[in-house]
Amino acid sequence: MKDDNRRRPPRRDYRREENPQVEENENQLEGRNALTEALRSGRTIDKVFIASGETDRALQRLAADAKAAGAVVVPVDRRKLDMMSVTRAHQGVIALAAAREYFSIDDILETAAERGECPLIVICDELTDPHNLGAIIRSAECAGAHGVIIPKRRSVGLTAVVAKASAGAVEYMKVARVTNINTAIEELKEKGVWIFGTAAEGSIPMYQADLCGPAAIVIGSEGEGMSRLVQKNCDVTVHIPMKGAITSLNASCAASILLYEAVRQRLSKEG
Amino acid sequence: MKDDNRRRPPRRDYRREENPQVEENENQLEGRNALTEALRSGRTIDKVFIASGETDRALQRLAADAKAAGAVVVPVDRRKLDMMSVTRAHQGVIALAAAREYFSIDDILETAAERGECPLIVICDELTDPHNLGAIIRSAECAGAHGVIIPKRRSVGLTAVVAKASAGAVEYMKVARVTNINTAIEELKEKGVWIFGTAAEGSIPMYQADLCGPAAIVIGSEGEGMSRLVQKNCDVTVHIPMKGAITSLNASCAASILLYEAVRQRLSKEG
Repeated sequence: MKDDNRRRPPRRDYRREENPQVEENENQLEGRNALTEALRSGRTIDKVFIASGETDRALQRLAADAKAAGAVVVPVDRRKLDMMSVTRAHQGVIALAAAREYFSIDDILETAAERGECPLIVICDELTDPHNLGAIIRSAECAGAHGVIIPKRRSVGLTAVVAKASAGAVEYMKVARVTNINTAIEELKEKGVWIFGTAAEGSIPMYQADLCGPAAIVIGSEGEGMSRLVQKNCDVTVHIPMKGAITSLNASCAASILLYEAVRQRLSKEG
Repeated sequence: MKDDNRRRPPRRDYRREENPQVEENENQLEGRNALTEALRSGRTIDKVFIASGETDRALQRLAADAKAAGAVVVPVDRRKLDMMSVTRAHQGVIALAAAREYFSIDDILETAAERGECPLIVICDELTDPHNLGAIIRSAECAGAHGVIIPKRRSVGLTAVVAKASAGAVEYMKVARVTNINTAIEELKEKGVWIFGTAAEGSIPMYQADLCGPAAIVIGSEGEGMSRLVQKNCDVTVHIPMKGAITSLNASCAASILLYEAVRQRLSKEG
């Protein structure tokens, strides 16, 4: 796709500072990890902006790798990188990748089938913080999950901030972007996947949920938790034990704890 | 929650956006009087930025007082102070006050003793992202941990952003700020606490670590992980199973997973 919008000078827009969610440049990769993982996964990189006069060996090697993979490497003044940067942590390199594709629920289920594993999926119900979504994609990848499902509306998409926060995991994790979370839940149920909602008032502690079978874990939005309809559509709601005064965890921390409860159960079943 | 820190910064300064360390200005004190009064009132000062090459006696004395009161004094170029300054009248000194008071390691151990529980502590080795530290404090509180230990240098302190990211958990969790993490580790060891380092190459999977006894979990910095010396001083290093291509989790997610492994072990021992 030759989308000229991609080349639009990503000048700083005062309003974007106020609201990190308006960033729509999904193809801008910032920082060394993000570019390294993109190259490793075979993603097409159009252009790499690198801080001129940068003598760091690792960065030079990274630029050479990108060039070998077909990218145009453009040395620019560090101030230009600062201006382009959305994450404000570009580490001297910003790359523009080819448009990112979202996957389908079937793609996710196929990945599980190919690996001969029971599906393990995270459904994010209207997360708005890109750092949370990025961290969840990262944890899902580390836990060997097969996909992450996000809604099209009222949710952050796969932006540069999400990609950076995922530390490169967006390159490996299949992310499906669906019109309606409840329809997606119905589709998963029809295909034999159990839906585990997470809520402070969840009916059973997570240890009692059987996460060894085909499982999708629903994580609610930062402020509101799961919507009432989504909660109603879950097969079972689980809670993470709360031992203190605070009644909820950060969304990405909650997702990580549940994903690793699934890992523990699956490992102990194997072994 | 009567937390004034929630209030938005009075206005955003374009240049300050470049430096996330000074993003949070509710606790930024500018000028000599502001710092003098803060010290006199016993307010905890994390850091004092002072114009390097400044020979003014009164300023030197002020810096010495701040240092004696536990602050880290950092000489910086006057232009950096100009960039940080909101008031444009910093008089050669800008200080960062803590959003909350710090506790001691003994305070943390006493809390555990009062509750009749084996200490559960998180040691953060040079975390720089305030969202990570905030989320760790939040997860620690939810998991019923007794304290969090952070170093004075090369680490974010209890800033307003940390307080906000903790979702109020800073009100309940005891955070100790120590001069030297290795000395703190020695102190904990002398008092019978086992030190569990976390690293990708950790010698045992976390499930094999006995987290039911007095335990401190060490979380390394975002970029580098644990420093070599800290790693050497751990009683044992553990790893979280990695099932994908990415080799590390977000720091707060890793901390949450380990904290809840401790919760699981302790619950199953009880029950």
